[in-house]
Amino acid sequence: MVGIKGVYQTKFGELWDKSLMGLMLEAGEGAINNAKIERKKIDLILVANMLGGVLEGQNHLGALAGELLGLKNTPAFRVEAACASGGVAINQAAMAIKAGQAKNVLVIGAEKMTDKSNGEVALALMGAASEAERLAGLTFVGLYALMARVYFEKFKANKDDLAYVAIKNHKHASLNPKAQFPFPVLLETVLKSSCVASPLHLFDCSPITDGAAGAVISGEDGKENKIKLAASQIATDSINLTERESLVELKATKIAGQKAYQEAGIKPEEIDLAEVHDCFSIAEIMAVEDLGFCQKGEGFKRIKAGDFDLGGRLPVNLSGGLKACGHPVGATGVKQLVEIVTQLRGEAEKRQVKNCRIGLTHNVGGSGATAVVNILKKL
Amino acid sequence: MVGIKGVYQTKFGELWDKSLMGLMLEAGEGAINNAKIERKKIDLILVANMLGGVLEGQNHLGALAGELLGLKNTPAFRVEAACASGGVAINQAAMAIKAGQAKNVLVIGAEKMTDKSNGEVALALMGAASEAERLAGLTFVGLYALMARVYFEKFKANKDDLAYVAIKNHKHASLNPKAQFPFPVLLETVLKSSCVASPLHLFDCSPITDGAAGAVISGEDGKENKIKLAASQIATDSINLTERESLVELKATKIAGQKAYQEAGIKPEEIDLAEVHDCFSIAEIMAVEDLGFCQKGEGFKRIKAGDFDLGGRLPVNLSGGLKACGHPVGATGVKQLVEIVTQLRGEAEKRQVKNCRIGLTHNVGGSGATAVVNILKKL
Repeated sequence: MVGIKGVYQTKFGELWDKSLMGLMLEAGEGAINNAKIERKKIDLILVANMLGGVLEGQNHLGALAGELLGLKNTPAFRVEAACASGGVAINQAAMAIKAGQAKNVLVIGAEKMTDKSNGEVALALMGAASEAERLAGLTFVGLYALMARVYFEKFKANKDDLAYVAIKNHKHASLNPKAQFPFPVLLETVLKSSCVASPLHLFDCSPITDGAAGAVISGEDGKENKIKLAASQIATDSINLTERESLVELKATKIAGQKAYQEAGIKPEEIDLAEVHDCFSIAEIMAVEDLGFCQKGEGFKRIKAGDFDLGGRLPVNLSGGLKACGHPVGATGVKQLVEIVTQLRGEAEKRQVKNCRIGLTHNVGGSGATAVVNILKKL
Repeated sequence: MVGIKGVYQTKFGELWDKSLMGLMLEAGEGAINNAKIERKKIDLILVANMLGGVLEGQNHLGALAGELLGLKNTPAFRVEAACASGGVAINQAAMAIKAGQAKNVLVIGAEKMTDKSNGEVALALMGAASEAERLAGLTFVGLYALMARVYFEKFKANKDDLAYVAIKNHKHASLNPKAQFPFPVLLETVLKSSCVASPLHLFDCSPITDGAAGAVISGEDGKENKIKLAASQIATDSINLTERESLVELKATKIAGQKAYQEAGIKPEEIDLAEVHDCFSIAEIMAVEDLGFCQKGEGFKRIKAGDFDLGGRLPVNLSGGLKACGHPVGATGVKQLVEIVTQLRGEAEKRQVKNCRIGLTHNVGGSGATAVVNILKKL
């Protein structure tokens, strides 16, 4: 069995007093302490990070994390699949355990983004898109804006419908002290925010964030090991939007989701709560549809109706999501796991979902070229 | 069993007419064709690359490789451990097969380095070192020069002794049409080359290179699957030289090597040929010692005596090594595998080792913070 022994999240935000190394160290130590295991039992370290080389001049983060944590000589390396790096690292941790190559894997997701200008960061992030898209001058908000336009056309939605994603996720973030924006927002504020790439406005977009998250994933049996990783699946699709079969869905999400439900032996209806990849409001709308939480074309209506609120039938993004908890890209997939484990343990305090047993994380790279779906079960 | 079904290497060099994408595509298709398997049987793609984000603005290479190869929807991601990325990717491929997560893994190592100035590349490569070393103004040749100075002091070697590494590896490269520098060099040429960081001269250093290599690693039984991956081990050490126990050895190499010999159930004496990480001449000298091919402090003497030449007792770096075949950093670990498989199959033509059965690859990240040792056996 692959279980989650320990989890930790740093505060997310503009952390000008923290370095990438400091964030990795805090998340790694936090997860080890939370797991209550001896440090030397960690036998593999996986670091999820996208932009350390580009923004901080620092690659080779696996060995670096080992040194920082006093775990030198331990096998260690970095995995990267753009903003899906964290989800992929969790998948790899499970794989190492199943292969018999490790017993206790430390996964650290970390990103330091706010020490550079917004322009530099936006350009660096375009490394997750295709060369053709980058050279055409597209940005990520532009790519998702194109998808939003097609979605609007097809399902008669409009930009006001998008606002309810931000309202819900900010409401959840207001209950999460680790969130970058731990406050609610009014409909009026969202609708009047400045346009970034029509139809997406400021509050349709996740922010630039510093932060890290850690998890100890374990194959060792024991009383502490009560949260099981019931499924972990990765799928990809064309990076180029022009090569996609449809622009109102992320096919990689659908494939990874279906495979994960099959692996876990459950149906979408059995999911009690989920963290989905809401890098932009339209992304959350497509995600709840592609993951089978509602019908295609119904996502924006169900979000507005409160289905995915705390207290609703399937609470989504209780951490505040990428939108309001923040989006330190390499950390996001690991933070999603931290939130679900915290909920399944019953430790989520003000934002706790009652009687939850099965949670799902959904982590996307770029405009949908990579998707990872992990399913967690409380035993 | 984990076996190697297909291998391919592009020409290494200053390939101004080839892009990172083109190199990945050529290596991927080459390996699939060489494996003689249906393309759709590939169920995982791993890309080893260090500097795509920094030098080319392109991350997210896993999904991109899938799209380029007509394998979209296939799970795919990138692994990075600086110059050891290729070796780590091979380790991960084996792990995926052992975990039952994949049957046929395509590993592509690729790097495009010559489109930027030497200064930009040198700075980007320092992302494999520590922040302290980088901010102190050190370069990689500087880091290895420090190790060489300690080695000289301890073992009474001098810079003339280093020259025999370049002479041997250029001699081997002269027999390898894929090499960046496929010509022999004279002792005089090596000794008179300009000093880069004393005591290391130009011919003590591996070059900046474009290139890619691919392999299909398979868990499927079959007649084609005659080369077995008998061991694959990763170890790390402190990135900072100041934190190492010794500067005349790479401890990560020693640990990974010992574990690999144990996993394969063999002794160093049984190795018929090896590709070791000669990013600098001193690195090859330490490698042959740390891997147990000779005593510590004897490496430079054994190289000079011809022990590791084609025709010697244990030919090392028949491809020409990093020094003369070239060093496209993410590709190097995969290229080492390609060379060993080519030799074990008896397809190495002019540089063929007679009656070889067991080969080893040794791939290092940075100044020794990561080391991967893979052992291959002909069945």
